[in-house]
Amino acid sequence: MSVRRSSVQQLLQSQELEREVVVKGWVRTRRGNKYVQFVALNDGSTIHTIQVVADAEKFPEETLKDVATGACLSVRGQLVASQGKGQAVEIQAIEIEVLGTADPEEYPLQKKGHSLEFLREIAHLRPRTNTFGAVLRVRHALAFAVHQYFNDHGFYYVHTPIITGSDAEGAGQMFRVTTLPPEHPPRTADGSVDYKEDFFGKQTNLTVSGQLEAEVAAMALGKVYTFGPTFRAENSNTARHLAEFWMIEPEVAFNDLQDNMDLAEDFLKSLVRQALEKCADDLQFLNDQYDKELLNRLRFVIENDFQRLTYTEAVEILKVAKQKFEFPVDWGTDLQSEHERYLVEKHFRKPVILTDYPKDIKAFYMKLNDDGRTVRAMDVLFPGIGEIIGGSQREENLEKLRTRMEQMHVEEHELWWYLELRKFGTAPHAGFGLGFERLVLFVTGMANIRDVIPFPRFPKNADF
Amino acid sequence: MSVRRSSVQQLLQSQELEREVVVKGWVRTRRGNKYVQFVALNDGSTIHTIQVVADAEKFPEETLKDVATGACLSVRGQLVASQGKGQAVEIQAIEIEVLGTADPEEYPLQKKGHSLEFLREIAHLRPRTNTFGAVLRVRHALAFAVHQYFNDHGFYYVHTPIITGSDAEGAGQMFRVTTLPPEHPPRTADGSVDYKEDFFGKQTNLTVSGQLEAEVAAMALGKVYTFGPTFRAENSNTARHLAEFWMIEPEVAFNDLQDNMDLAEDFLKSLVRQALEKCADDLQFLNDQYDKELLNRLRFVIENDFQRLTYTEAVEILKVAKQKFEFPVDWGTDLQSEHERYLVEKHFRKPVILTDYPKDIKAFYMKLNDDGRTVRAMDVLFPGIGEIIGGSQREENLEKLRTRMEQMHVEEHELWWYLELRKFGTAPHAGFGLGFERLVLFVTGMANIRDVIPFPRFPKNADF
Repeated sequence: MSVRRSSVQQLLQSQELEREVVVKGWVRTRRGNKYVQFVALNDGSTIHTIQVVADAEKFPEETLKDVATGACLSVRGQLVASQGKGQAVEIQAIEIEVLGTADPEEYPLQKKGHSLEFLREIAHLRPRTNTFGAVLRVRHALAFAVHQYFNDHGFYYVHTPIITGSDAEGAGQMFRVTTLPPEHPPRTADGSVDYKEDFFGKQTNLTVSGQLEAEVAAMALGKVYTFGPTFRAENSNTARHLAEFWMIEPEVAFNDLQDNMDLAEDFLKSLVRQALEKCADDLQFLNDQYDKELLNRLRFVIENDFQRLTYTEAVEILKVAKQKFEFPVDWGTDLQSEHERYLVEKHFRKPVILTDYPKDIKAFYMKLNDDGRTVRAMDVLFPGIGEIIGGSQREENLEKLRTRMEQMHVEEHELWWYLELRKFGTAPHAGFGLGFERLVLFVTGMANIRDVIPFPRFPKNADF
Repeated sequence: MSVRRSSVQQLLQSQELEREVVVKGWVRTRRGNKYVQFVALNDGSTIHTIQVVADAEKFPEETLKDVATGACLSVRGQLVASQGKGQAVEIQAIEIEVLGTADPEEYPLQKKGHSLEFLREIAHLRPRTNTFGAVLRVRHALAFAVHQYFNDHGFYYVHTPIITGSDAEGAGQMFRVTTLPPEHPPRTADGSVDYKEDFFGKQTNLTVSGQLEAEVAAMALGKVYTFGPTFRAENSNTARHLAEFWMIEPEVAFNDLQDNMDLAEDFLKSLVRQALEKCADDLQFLNDQYDKELLNRLRFVIENDFQRLTYTEAVEILKVAKQKFEFPVDWGTDLQSEHERYLVEKHFRKPVILTDYPKDIKAFYMKLNDDGRTVRAMDVLFPGIGEIIGGSQREENLEKLRTRMEQMHVEEHELWWYLELRKFGTAPHAGFGLGFERLVLFVTGMANIRDVIPFPRFPKNADF
C-alpha cells in the first residue's frame, strides 16, 4: 500500500520521525553543492517550507535538472530530525518526481523580491509568494472567525440579493446589470431605453449594501448577518477603495445604539484575537517584512476599551487641537480623514467610536435623536484605516421614517416593503457594516487594499 | 437593575424556574376567555413559541387591544412550569408593552394558512411564518456547516471575483455589468459600443463560476473553496433555476477523480448530518407539514454509500430499462432528467455518482481519459433533485488543454493566465461545484427553489 500524502504543516508538527512520508508541493529554492542538494518545498498549508535533502549519490545532477524554483514535485522520503538550523525535521529523499516544470528563463517568480505593483499584474501567480500566501491565509481565518462568532452568538446568516431593482440604498453609485442588446436596445415611444424588455422587466443594479433586506430578516429571525459582495461604481483610484468588495452586516432586533457599539467592539476584538491565535506564523512574517508595529497594534486593539464619544464632543476636541488641518472643522460637516486620524492616532491613541452625527450627513434610515438635529449613528475609527465600521440604530417609527425619506428625496414607492416593516410589528433595531477588506488591511498591515483580495476590481481593471 | 432579555429558545430550555424574565418577540396567536388570555410569542430564535399568560385581573381587555397576530411585544414576567400541555414552561405576565402594532385588517399574515405562491409576493414578511423561519434557519446551519467542514479539513476560503472580464467560463448566458449611459453609449468609428469607455475599460459580466480563479488559488494554497453568488441569464422559469444563486466550489491540488468523489460524498453527508443535528425541530416541522418522507430520506443519504458508475455503464442500464422514456438514450448525448431520476429513484434507489462522460458534452477544462473519447467528469445525482454536484479532474497538461480549447472554440488570449497555471509548476487537481440552493431544497424538502432563498431573482422579477 502506498503512503498517504502529508501536508508540509503536518510534517513540520510531527513528532513521529524515522518513517516514510510523501509530500507534494512547489519548489521555493534549491541550493547545495556537488555532494548534496537542499530543496525548500511549500504546499500552501503553511508559510514554512520543508527541506528535502537529495544526496548526489542517489540523485545525480541530471535527475534534478527540472527541480527549479516554481516546479511542482512529488517527494517520497524518510522524515528525519534535521541537522541544519531553522527547522526541526527534514526529508531524506528516496524518490523525486517532477509533476510540473517551471522554466527559469520564463517563470516570473524567481528568488529575488518583487514589488507589490508588479505582483498585481500577475495576480494568477502572486498567491505563490510568501506575502500573498500569508495574506490569503489570514483572510480565510478572518472570514471563518466572522461566521464562527455569529453562529456562536445565535445569529443567522442571510444571503441578501446581489442584483437589486432598487437604487434607493443611497450608499453610492451603482453598476447597471442588463441583458439588453447594447448596440440597439429596445426603446419606448419617446425614444428612451425600454427596461420592460430587460431580463428583470425593469432597470437593475448591483447592490451597494444588504442592510435593508437584512432588516427584513431581523424583524423575523431576531439576530442576523450578511457577508457578501457589494459594489461601488465610483471612479476612485485609491489604496482604500475597490469597485467590488465584501461586506459584513449584522442587524439585531431590539438592539439600541449602546448594544450596537458593544456588539461592534466585541466582534472586532474577537476577530483580531482569532487571527493572532490561528495565524501566528503568517502575522509574524508580515510583521517582520512590512510593518514592525503590526503585532503590537493588534494586541493593543484587543487589550484596550474603544474610546466612545459623540460627534459633537469630537468637534470640540478638534477645534482646540494644536494640529493644523487642511479642512476646517465645523459642526454639521463630515469629518475628513485627517480629523479622524488625529482623534485615533494622536488624541486618544486607541480605536474610537463616534456617535450621534448631524442628521443631514447621514442616511435616511438612521433613528432621529430627541434633539431633532442628530441621529443615532456610529462610526468605528481604527488607526491607519480610518472608518472600519459604520452603523446606527434604525428609525423604527413609520411616520418619522416617512418624513426623513421625504426630506432626503427617497421615493416611497421604491421602498414600500421597507416601510411595511414599520407598519406591522415594528421594533427598535440596530446594525452596522464592516468592510471586510478594510479589516484584512488592518490585520495584515498591508498598505494597499488591492493586495488583500485575490483579484481586485477597480477603474479600468477587471483582469483574470 | 433591569433583567436582561432572554431568547425564546433560552427560556424553553431553561431549568431555572420561578424567576423574573424579559422576552421580546412577535405575537403568533392569541386566545383565551374572560379570565385569562394566552399569547404565543416567537422571536425567531426557534420555531417554537413561548406562552405568555395574562390574567384578566391584571390585564383588563382594553390593555390588550393591540396584542394581535403580528404585533411586537416586550414582556416581563415570571418563568413558571406550564399547566397546559405542549410546553414545559410559560411566562406569567407582569408587564406587557406593545412595541409595534399590526392592524388585523391590514396585516396579511393572519392565522390561516397561505399558499407559497402568495407568500412569494410578500417576501419581506414571509420570514415571519413557521415555514420560512424553518427554511432560513436550516439554510444558515448548512452555510455554517460548509465553512466548518472546509476549515476543519485545511481548506482556505477564497473570494473569487463577481465581475469578470472573461466570457470564457462557458457555463451559461451572462449578465452584462456596465456604467455606460444606456440611451447614448459612446461608440467607436464603426458605430459599435465603445467598451474602452466603460468602467473597467472593457465589456464585463457577472460570473457564472469561480472555478477558474479557484484553480489559481489551489495551485498555491493547495486546498481551497469558494462560496459566493453566481449568475445565469437564461430565461428559465422553472422550480429548479434561479438567475442569482450561491455556489460552493472546492478545488484541491493533487486530487484525482477518485479523491474528488470521496470528498464530494463525505462533504454532502457531513452537511446533511449537521442539519439533522442542529435543526431537528425545524426539519421535524417541514417533515410533518410538507413531506412525510423528508427525515427518512436525509437519514438514508447519510447511512448509505453513493453508487458510483461510469456514464457508459449508466447508458447500458438505461437501454435495457423496462421504463419508457420520452427522450432516447444514446451514448454521446447528455442524460435527461428522466434518465437521472430512473437511475437514482428506481434502479439504485440511492444517490449516484456518474463519471467519465463523453468529452463533447462536457467543458474544455476536464481531463481527457486515455480512451480519447471521455473525460474525468463526475455528476452527483440526488433523489428528487437530480444533479446536485458537477465536477471533474482538470486537464493539467498544457498541450492537451490547448487542443481542447481550440476544439471547443475557447479563445487562448482570454485565458492566458489559466494556461500559465499549466506552464509553471502544473499539478494534477480536481474540484466540483455544489449549487447551494439545490442543497437547501434537498434538505428542507421544499418543492420550489424560489422558496429556499430569501429574495429570489428570476425572469421579470427583482423585487425587494
